[in-house]
Amino acid sequence: MENLFSDRINDVPKSFIREILKVTIDSSIISFAGGLPNRHFFPVKALQQAAHDVFEEAGNEILQYANSEGYLGLRQFISHRYKQRDGLDIPVEDILITTGSQQGLDLLGKTFLNEGDDLIIEEPGYLGAIQAFAMYRPRFHPVPVTEGGMNIDKLAQIQDERQPKLLYTVTNFQNPSGISYNNANRRAVAELIRTSSCLIIQDDPYGDLRFSGERKISFKRLLPEKTVLLGSFSKIVAPALRLGWLAAPAPIMNKLVIAKQAADLHSDYLAQRILHRFLCDNDIDAHIATIIAQYGKQKEAMIGAIRDFFPADVRFTNPEGGMFLWITLPEGMSSMALFEAAIKQKVAFVPGTPFYVDRKDSNTLRLNFSCVDEQTIVEGIKRLGQSIKELV
Amino acid sequence: MENLFSDRINDVPKSFIREILKVTIDSSIISFAGGLPNRHFFPVKALQQAAHDVFEEAGNEILQYANSEGYLGLRQFISHRYKQRDGLDIPVEDILITTGSQQGLDLLGKTFLNEGDDLIIEEPGYLGAIQAFAMYRPRFHPVPVTEGGMNIDKLAQIQDERQPKLLYTVTNFQNPSGISYNNANRRAVAELIRTSSCLIIQDDPYGDLRFSGERKISFKRLLPEKTVLLGSFSKIVAPALRLGWLAAPAPIMNKLVIAKQAADLHSDYLAQRILHRFLCDNDIDAHIATIIAQYGKQKEAMIGAIRDFFPADVRFTNPEGGMFLWITLPEGMSSMALFEAAIKQKVAFVPGTPFYVDRKDSNTLRLNFSCVDEQTIVEGIKRLGQSIKELV
Repeated sequence: MENLFSDRINDVPKSFIREILKVTIDSSIISFAGGLPNRHFFPVKALQQAAHDVFEEAGNEILQYANSEGYLGLRQFISHRYKQRDGLDIPVEDILITTGSQQGLDLLGKTFLNEGDDLIIEEPGYLGAIQAFAMYRPRFHPVPVTEGGMNIDKLAQIQDERQPKLLYTVTNFQNPSGISYNNANRRAVAELIRTSSCLIIQDDPYGDLRFSGERKISFKRLLPEKTVLLGSFSKIVAPALRLGWLAAPAPIMNKLVIAKQAADLHSDYLAQRILHRFLCDNDIDAHIATIIAQYGKQKEAMIGAIRDFFPADVRFTNPEGGMFLWITLPEGMSSMALFEAAIKQKVAFVPGTPFYVDRKDSNTLRLNFSCVDEQTIVEGIKRLGQSIKELV
Repeated sequence: MENLFSDRINDVPKSFIREILKVTIDSSIISFAGGLPNRHFFPVKALQQAAHDVFEEAGNEILQYANSEGYLGLRQFISHRYKQRDGLDIPVEDILITTGSQQGLDLLGKTFLNEGDDLIIEEPGYLGAIQAFAMYRPRFHPVPVTEGGMNIDKLAQIQDERQPKLLYTVTNFQNPSGISYNNANRRAVAELIRTSSCLIIQDDPYGDLRFSGERKISFKRLLPEKTVLLGSFSKIVAPALRLGWLAAPAPIMNKLVIAKQAADLHSDYLAQRILHRFLCDNDIDAHIATIIAQYGKQKEAMIGAIRDFFPADVRFTNPEGGMFLWITLPEGMSSMALFEAAIKQKVAFVPGTPFYVDRKDSNTLRLNFSCVDEQTIVEGIKRLGQSIKELV
């Protein structure tokens, strides 16, 4: 059997995070390991009503096969929102509805990557993107991100030495680090990319979850012809529906639609219609405001507790939005060893290791603050601080 | 821009069927071109009720991220149905919920196919499978299918000359031909595959839509360790939900789950829960019986009209189920030319050409009988017969 499998699938290791999440099913464990939006904010009643209404209105039409690009009304909503929020003109024809933004990553891999092609990713980087792109066997070139954005010297060096096809970036409240690129860094990245043949993939699942600071400029404004945007309804409405989107210029969109047809014909059309009805009948910005008010409080609780309970030489990011922050332990400490110790104290997190393409251990870790209430956050960070001190 | 695209996506031609379906949007055209189930039979009210009920019962749980394998209850339903209907023991652990069975094809391509690998397909073959597998750039080896099944000599020859990894087959009421493999043919295929390293992919979207004759033996019974099953709820409930499944032995399932995670994390979980509730609260076999009673009548109407209005030297399949039948025009006639002529008579079909991997024209065509009422079928076939006679 083994020799029947493709090289690409044999190269993928067993998911590390899946194994960790299995450990944290134990309900006595305080888990900062997950990456889930807080289910408390899912608009259950409003979606139930929207489901009822679309069945009433559209009967059997919403149950038939639909076009691969996605429901026009939903694409119009997305186009309108880009205009209203960012002043971006993105025509409906440039928007493709995807089965979660995870599928967007897979379709981009299919559309662009030959084996051995050069691809720039962030370090640390989003694991789901690494997994999706890895299926197409590119050469990954990690560029470090720290508070403020991407390391420009390293980016310039790779641009010099290679002809990368794609640069993948989560510019707002990145998963795993919570880091955002400031405007100066975005402009510097754009200047380097402008004269190259590289495209920027700007993945923005968390952009709406800003609880402080100001919205930053989109690469789509800086490099309109060279930017592909990825978006998601998972963090602002509900992930179960698996609805996200891609926005790309027409020549790319034509190819993406071919890849989409081969992948699943189209995304769940009933879900698209329910979501669209929900968005029409409810104030999504008011809904988002409710979510971020709470996430902001939880982040503050976590930062406060870190200051209170962690050793002074532990560094941490202080994100203005999103769901994660990033811890850097003193040089030489192992976050894998800390994980083992912390589980005994009934607290869990994700060690930084899987967010690098080439490491077996690291002194970094990801903490999620969206799913745990403030009191529990303080208790969990206290225990984690104790584990760190014991390990030093 | 062009030189940024991957080789795989540059090799895919613009979808021929999409272009044809655009022509048939004109409501004055009688279309036998589609491949849709009849929307008249979608269980609108029952699904509306199921949606209402799962929101009531499971609140925000049904809106959260879920596991990649799919909802356990739905997988149990599928496992139970294999047992009850075919006497097959397929454990729940061997079942993966997919975003339509189209995604199953993509995941199989990802999991098995390196560029240049040998793959056996039917000729004519299912276009969606050709498109999905083509993304992984295998070498296609078409084996003719005619009434009764696959050409065994040709299959033996390919097995001899090559080491094909996969054999892809739609054994019941195939799309596009309506052909089913008889039991003797299935056994002969299985004997050839048994001692090879090849796996059989048995895609069965239409198996439940049998309006006459007896259910045939599954490859899963003949070659349990070497068969992967694909199934779909699109034809028996509703396609919009994009829910299908793969059933495969554990070593394959482990790899498929990795591919699934990279592709879209999981299929729409709300849709899975709605579908499961619908299946629990309604008699699916009674529902299917209603569909096939009508499809059977429509097929009879089409066969009758063909006998009445087509020249005697036009051959046609007479399927015992499904949604399609297959026409073979006299040698040398062009189904592309017939298409042009027929459109002028306001009747449409799909020329056979796209169902072969290597032809520019053919004397074959596909007719769909699921979406047109009996009276309109007779009128459409009459017009088509006229077009054929004019072209001879």
